[in-house]
Amino acid sequence: MTEFDMPGRDGATLETAPTRYVESRTIRFAYRRLGPQTGTPLVLLQHFSGNIDAWDPAVVNALAADRPVIAFDNAGVGRSSGQTPDNVAAMARDAVDFISSLGLAKVDLLGFSLGGCVAQQIAAEHEELVRKLILVGTAPKGGEEHLLEVLQQAFSQTDAPDPRLPLFFTNSSASRSSGLAFLKRTKVRKDDRDIDHGSAVTDPQAKALITWCATPDPGHAILRAIRQPTLVVSGSHDTMLPANNAYTMFKELRNAQLVLYPDSGHGALFQHHETFVGHVRTFLDAHRAAE
Amino acid sequence: MTEFDMPGRDGATLETAPTRYVESRTIRFAYRRLGPQTGTPLVLLQHFSGNIDAWDPAVVNALAADRPVIAFDNAGVGRSSGQTPDNVAAMARDAVDFISSLGLAKVDLLGFSLGGCVAQQIAAEHEELVRKLILVGTAPKGGEEHLLEVLQQAFSQTDAPDPRLPLFFTNSSASRSSGLAFLKRTKVRKDDRDIDHGSAVTDPQAKALITWCATPDPGHAILRAIRQPTLVVSGSHDTMLPANNAYTMFKELRNAQLVLYPDSGHGALFQHHETFVGHVRTFLDAHRAAE
Repeated sequence: MTEFDMPGRDGATLETAPTRYVESRTIRFAYRRLGPQTGTPLVLLQHFSGNIDAWDPAVVNALAADRPVIAFDNAGVGRSSGQTPDNVAAMARDAVDFISSLGLAKVDLLGFSLGGCVAQQIAAEHEELVRKLILVGTAPKGGEEHLLEVLQQAFSQTDAPDPRLPLFFTNSSASRSSGLAFLKRTKVRKDDRDIDHGSAVTDPQAKALITWCATPDPGHAILRAIRQPTLVVSGSHDTMLPANNAYTMFKELRNAQLVLYPDSGHGALFQHHETFVGHVRTFLDAHRAAE
Repeated sequence: MTEFDMPGRDGATLETAPTRYVESRTIRFAYRRLGPQTGTPLVLLQHFSGNIDAWDPAVVNALAADRPVIAFDNAGVGRSSGQTPDNVAAMARDAVDFISSLGLAKVDLLGFSLGGCVAQQIAAEHEELVRKLILVGTAPKGGEEHLLEVLQQAFSQTDAPDPRLPLFFTNSSASRSSGLAFLKRTKVRKDDRDIDHGSAVTDPQAKALITWCATPDPGHAILRAIRQPTLVVSGSHDTMLPANNAYTMFKELRNAQLVLYPDSGHGALFQHHETFVGHVRTFLDAHRAAE
């Protein structure tokens, strides 16, 4: 199956698109495909604990206005079969397995948080497969993370309507208000919602992310192996994976743009969704590598 | 005269627009006005040694596609009368004098290099006058500059077709090629070109920029006084005013976005002109302060 005969549905949204399945030799992957039939597909790599319905429809639908966008559950997550691995390298192999199963020979990748680690690993190892790379709220191998203490704080806020409010947004009224709007958007879909598996997914994912950051990468070998144009994005006050990671990635990558947003946390892409979509479009549509 | 009865010329470009004049009590200012009649005008504040024709038509004309854009010579520069002051505060007063002379009550400012210092001073002192602020290749008061040594190196490269090639671009072939294209674009206008005054302008301007960076600003008082949404932009390898300045401004400003471009020097906005224009549009068109 090529990208041209994939069952895309123009006009479908993240909230209305059917969840589809594709089988590799080992995994049955759940995914949704939005946007036009042609163009380089943008494949989304999700954050720690998130499934397809954890993406922000405001971001995904706007990006799908002018390019194919594919959200999926990696092995063991949501409605995909298999086990969630406990390391980024295996997650990258699974994601490549998914992309290959769709018959896609060239994609753009948008990796958020843990998904950004997976995206780095894929881009470094598969120069031919990845055209451009977008890394949001993530860290380089050997980078700085505060996952466990921030999660602990977030889950201790028993009055928060959702742990993503303190995890993804700052304490300012503007950011919290954006956070509540984000949560509302993620709950519009009622039928055929994706599912959660709790610690069967989050335990190995946490181990993968913490190990990724705890493992030194001398000379930033992975970043230096990435040759694709890269857009690096972070919130000013990301408590889990601080913005310093983004500045480091910008400086070590061969061809990176850096974008940092004000008064924002780990979920900066959801808070500043219009601006973020504008930046992604500008980046993906630039016709020269240097642009 | 209000912004609505200004003699704008739809379809005019930086290369074809007539140079116009407006008189304040003390200065006769030269300017060119492009773009539509309505909308918040974007006023451009030029770099050390530059006049109106030192702006990149690719940037200015693209920005003027959907907003009024005004390029002008500050006091003593180009075809404007008066003396070039030797300090940023006086340059800011002159620029406000120019804006007031046009009868404009609210503008956006784009300040490049020395013009970015002037823009910071204006925004900090005139909250009501400035809607949004764009700071490119510049430094905060007390920031880091390497003006004299870099100028010396640039002017010692006697084989360079223009000192702006080594000053504004990196040594990579992509950047140098962008630099040659930039120089070509700035030379398209033949008639009614702006004029240079040599050291009568550059001596006081150099003193102003060096003094700005040599003067500590405890607690970043100027940055903290700026309440407008701000877009901070820098090249990865700016040798005169390093990108660290941009990261500092982003962190100290109340509401700033940061954008850094790869493989680029002081002239990053000209090298990455399409992407830069995309970023400026996304920033100026965002309808909420938080966006």
